[in-house]
Amino acid sequence: MKFKITKYDSHSSARIGILETSHGKINTPVFMPVGTLGAVKTFLPQELETLKTDIILGNTYHLYLRPGDEIIKQAGGLHAFSGWEGPMLTDSGGFQVFSLARLNKITDNGVEFQSHIDGSKHFFTPEKSMSIQRNLGADIIMAFDECPPGESDKSTVKQSVDRTTQWTKRCINYLKNNPSHFGWEQIMFPIIQGNIYPDFRKQSLEELIPLASKGIAIGGLAVGEEKSSMMEMIALCNEYLPIEQPRYLMGIGRPNDIVKAVSLGVDMFDCVIPTRNGRNGHIFTEDGIINIKNSKYKSDFSPIDANSTSPIGEQFSKSYVRHLFNVNEILGIRIASILNIAFFMKLMSTIRSEIESETFDIWSRSYLKKWLD
Amino acid sequence: MKFKITKYDSHSSARIGILETSHGKINTPVFMPVGTLGAVKTFLPQELETLKTDIILGNTYHLYLRPGDEIIKQAGGLHAFSGWEGPMLTDSGGFQVFSLARLNKITDNGVEFQSHIDGSKHFFTPEKSMSIQRNLGADIIMAFDECPPGESDKSTVKQSVDRTTQWTKRCINYLKNNPSHFGWEQIMFPIIQGNIYPDFRKQSLEELIPLASKGIAIGGLAVGEEKSSMMEMIALCNEYLPIEQPRYLMGIGRPNDIVKAVSLGVDMFDCVIPTRNGRNGHIFTEDGIINIKNSKYKSDFSPIDANSTSPIGEQFSKSYVRHLFNVNEILGIRIASILNIAFFMKLMSTIRSEIESETFDIWSRSYLKKWLD
Repeated sequence: MKFKITKYDSHSSARIGILETSHGKINTPVFMPVGTLGAVKTFLPQELETLKTDIILGNTYHLYLRPGDEIIKQAGGLHAFSGWEGPMLTDSGGFQVFSLARLNKITDNGVEFQSHIDGSKHFFTPEKSMSIQRNLGADIIMAFDECPPGESDKSTVKQSVDRTTQWTKRCINYLKNNPSHFGWEQIMFPIIQGNIYPDFRKQSLEELIPLASKGIAIGGLAVGEEKSSMMEMIALCNEYLPIEQPRYLMGIGRPNDIVKAVSLGVDMFDCVIPTRNGRNGHIFTEDGIINIKNSKYKSDFSPIDANSTSPIGEQFSKSYVRHLFNVNEILGIRIASILNIAFFMKLMSTIRSEIESETFDIWSRSYLKKWLD
Repeated sequence: MKFKITKYDSHSSARIGILETSHGKINTPVFMPVGTLGAVKTFLPQELETLKTDIILGNTYHLYLRPGDEIIKQAGGLHAFSGWEGPMLTDSGGFQVFSLARLNKITDNGVEFQSHIDGSKHFFTPEKSMSIQRNLGADIIMAFDECPPGESDKSTVKQSVDRTTQWTKRCINYLKNNPSHFGWEQIMFPIIQGNIYPDFRKQSLEELIPLASKGIAIGGLAVGEEKSSMMEMIALCNEYLPIEQPRYLMGIGRPNDIVKAVSLGVDMFDCVIPTRNGRNGHIFTEDGIINIKNSKYKSDFSPIDANSTSPIGEQFSKSYVRHLFNVNEILGIRIASILNIAFFMKLMSTIRSEIESETFDIWSRSYLKKWLD
């Protein structure tokens, strides 16, 4: 994997670059749609390509439970299994274990948890997470980290930082002794923890930067803390992170947070917002988010989003899409999801071209005034 | 609307033809996917075009209840509202009123019923059905008929035949005095009733054929009667129906029933089977129907249907599609629906080319041996 930064913004830490993987090139800053269970909800792979998606994400925890990583390994990896031929990233499973499953016990060795599906007991260790991610075969894989809840006390956060470092070392060790199954490179990103405590963030940075060979992630944010604290932590990471490596801010995806984080040097984002909000009828447009279920759209025959890069923004009226949601037609969810992914892809493309033309600074200030959430 | 029969089969009553509407040409025999509520479930209109769908159907009863035919009229008709620009047919609402709604009272004037959604009371008359179908603006519209249940006694069936004739006359009268809203032609098909009673079928044929200007439908079948009785009734209609008009067999859609009915001179079919069965994981392939939820497909990495006219038949494995159904991913329903619509479109295309090449007789005999349901 190669990362080439093609331009640095002179007024901020924003930069544009190209990340080359065995499955294709990624233009950064990039937004990665989330394909939780081996599909970005409602999308065929080719539809994501049409929308200029460079890379998608898969969830280790979910895929381990269903269909099971052994099945996916037999299929030739998650690329072959899902039909997505472009670059792919998998998370470590850690975040879902800590947020979605029922936690039984965390020790220095690993995490015992119960499946949110059927209550069955499982045990994840750094080695287990790496073994699953080897079976899934994504181009970028994530270290197994401990991500404590947002309201954790300092001693819990300190312990998670210590543990994350130890676990990252074990991940590296496992990968060294267990090569890729599919012949292509899998690059592991360590994950900086430390919650909103600058000292712990610094400790995590100091310990993990030496372990990062080709990229690094900022984790443990958007877990309930204040937005201002989140941005302070990103700024702090920006001071310490090696400038030449891609930086991935995990789980963050509101448009204004993306724009701010780009100005603080972040290159990669993922979030379920476009698809999850789409399923609830919340559609991102240049004029703001509209809740298409609202009865005020009943006779509104104007295009659902005339400015969308997808032709369906012009093709369908607000009235029609409202009707589809009102009668629970899957096509409504599809239209909203397409428009939302198109919106995020267009946002990233705009960010890149504003950086390219040295206008990111002015543009982002005006953008942040427009988007208030 | 013009119907030109381009070839008659010499061994059966099968024929191929071209039906010209204001929104395009239809190659017959044709299968019409059902777009109940203004969308063929899960499909964008352009995806149906890609699958070579010539015409889709909309349901008057459903669209009257939601979003309401006045909304659709304001949108410029169902074509504009739904984004489907090709030929369209709407039913009269009668069948759903009799089968889905709670019936309160049937009189010679019309039918009082309660919505299956919220129990609200409504009254459909032949005039009301025509008024709604004028608002929807389909190219082919259906007379308001009475379709009694399959197990009805002779006096009930006799009454429904009498009433259907009277109601059809009222439909014609309404249409004469209330022209199309949208400038294009709307052709109304009367609907032959009479259940499985030859005398009543003959009465219905004698009374309705003079009222049919450009097409006619066979209704009141597939309502619980024996398959053999159904085919006898189609054969009976075939003897009497004007040879030059298109004949539409309503609600019938199992592959073998279609093949038999084509040999009995039927030109048009509709059924929810491809989409409804698709949603349940039943996928039509050349080797038969597979239930993709079956655990035997867990590690079956062979293509879901290598013979499909859609490239997704090759793109995805049985294992992957099973997984999608197992985790309730909408993409699974989409893939099954696409494959099923592709299957039906390919079946009709095969039927047409077998008739064209004078081999329909031999082909259909071998096809009917293969498909046992």
